Amino acid sequence: MKEILVIGSVALDTIASPFGYSKEILGGSATYFSISASFFVPVNLVATVGVDFPEGHKKTIRSFGVDLEGLETKEGKTFRWEGSYVKDMNCAETIETQLNVFAEFKPCLPKGYENSKYIFLANIDPDLQIFILKRFAGKRFIGCDSMNHWIKNKNRSLKNMIKRTSIIFLNDLEAKMLSGESNILKAGKYLLSLGPRFAVVKRGEYGAILFSKNFVFMAPAYLLEEVKDPTGAGDTFAGGFMGYLAKTDKINEKNMKNALLWGSVMASFTVQDFSINRFLKISRKDIEVRYKKFRQLISI
Amino acid sequence: MKEILVIGSVALDTIASPFGYSKEILGGSATYFSISASFFVPVNLVATVGVDFPEGHKKTIRSFGVDLEGLETKEGKTFRWEGSYVKDMNCAETIETQLNVFAEFKPCLPKGYENSKYIFLANIDPDLQIFILKRFAGKRFIGCDSMNHWIKNKNRSLKNMIKRTSIIFLNDLEAKMLSGESNILKAGKYLLSLGPRFAVVKRGEYGAILFSKNFVFMAPAYLLEEVKDPTGAGDTFAGGFMGYLAKTDKINEKNMKNALLWGSVMASFTVQDFSINRFLKISRKDIEVRYKKFRQLISI
Repeated sequence: MKEILVIGSVALDTIASPFGYSKEILGGSATYFSISASFFVPVNLVATVGVDFPEGHKKTIRSFGVDLEGLETKEGKTFRWEGSYVKDMNCAETIETQLNVFAEFKPCLPKGYENSKYIFLANIDPDLQIFILKRFAGKRFIGCDSMNHWIKNKNRSLKNMIKRTSIIFLNDLEAKMLSGESNILKAGKYLLSLGPRFAVVKRGEYGAILFSKNFVFMAPAYLLEEVKDPTGAGDTFAGGFMGYLAKTDKINEKNMKNALLWGSVMASFTVQDFSINRFLKISRKDIEVRYKKFRQLISI
Repeated sequence: MKEILVIGSVALDTIASPFGYSKEILGGSATYFSISASFFVPVNLVATVGVDFPEGHKKTIRSFGVDLEGLETKEGKTFRWEGSYVKDMNCAETIETQLNVFAEFKPCLPKGYENSKYIFLANIDPDLQIFILKRFAGKRFIGCDSMNHWIKNKNRSLKNMIKRTSIIFLNDLEAKMLSGESNILKAGKYLLSLGPRFAVVKRGEYGAILFSKNFVFMAPAYLLEEVKDPTGAGDTFAGGFMGYLAKTDKINEKNMKNALLWGSVMASFTVQDFSINRFLKISRKDIEVRYKKFRQLISI
């Protein structure tokens, strides 16, 4: 078992969904990733928040065993995002983004963090992701995420960054956009051609596809009768995926495939409630039960 | 091994897709179903065409071992459908529908056909489907399909028909429309509540879900680098599904799950070319090879 390091955002989200309106709730890529991964291994988090960030939220994240030594508090306001799923539960409509202190984010790794073997670079400026990558020498397993904004505006940096990672996680629209391919299989192959050993294309409620040079693996998403808030599903998926890998600490075909299933299971919990609230109510046992059910759902 | 009987349409389709324009090519639900099922068992087809239906098309269907004694030729023109996938490969835009002799279709079963144990009622007027069902007494395995038009305009007849079948095949939009549920899991459960032992919800390129009282099974669709014409994928899926069941002639959980995979494999061939053309170029061996690949793609 190895620790995981995640570098990303800790944010205050305001979400409108058909199931309600939640103002300034705990969000951010590093938040979702770390809490998800914490069910598998200890997690170290690097992010920045403003002085207005509620102490209670820090306490919540810490309650999952996530180390917050790398969470810097800066003069100014916390990163805020406001989104709506009222028109389409599968696609957030961004109402407002306030970067605030996140605009000046310069990740600073506390002593000891640079020993991490498993690292996740959540969706931030690819130049920052490269800046972080340079801190790590030797054999590491590095995952990364990105988004349409960087594909459009920092394409070259983004590709330079991806080249240095072990696995890239993108959703289907991002994968198609980055590759210029409308076909998902071609898009996945393109991602591999950029350099990483693995690529995962996430398809929301339709599951995910894992690409590697030697095999491709597909699984549908875990079926739910009710989805309340899809925010953070992708980061939660990556958290479960990387968390399982760090726990087993062995990169082989079987573990990679299983990682995808554990990622799907973790994501299925996130969307059942706003923010990371669902994780406050479940135990490792609940996760194992759902994993077992999921295996049955997709096995012959 | 048992024979299959299919009652549906044999048509002349005119298709526009990003890969070309094909005028008056062989189409129709019974055509796609029967050719797909013919790779598993002998198939008997009941449909009607006009005097303008090319003899060559009949020869093509017969070349798959499909019995056409039940294909009635009537004074008038053959059912014609014109559709376009230029805007969206996942959703046909109907340009024109000419029912022609199909408007007066009154299925007439040749002697011996009524002994069929496996029967597929393709998408036709539910009152006609009920009319056919009344010809069959005793233990049968009956599959059915339908469409938005009948859900809207013959809802009561449709539900009466579904009640008498063993399995219903609908796509996700139809399942949601018939059930009034926006959630696919709830929609699947609703379909079962109407009476059939099994319900299959097809999700196009995202795979299919099999519902039963005792288990649910999901599989993604077989990944393809190129889709030329999705017409007939649903009927081809049903043909592979029912064909495999008729071949094994044993309704149990494992066979039902495998039937879904065989259906997916058959559908993946159809969409690779216009009309049923792909099936003219493949053998049972090609199908088995793809099934094996598909199993690898979804297995841990």
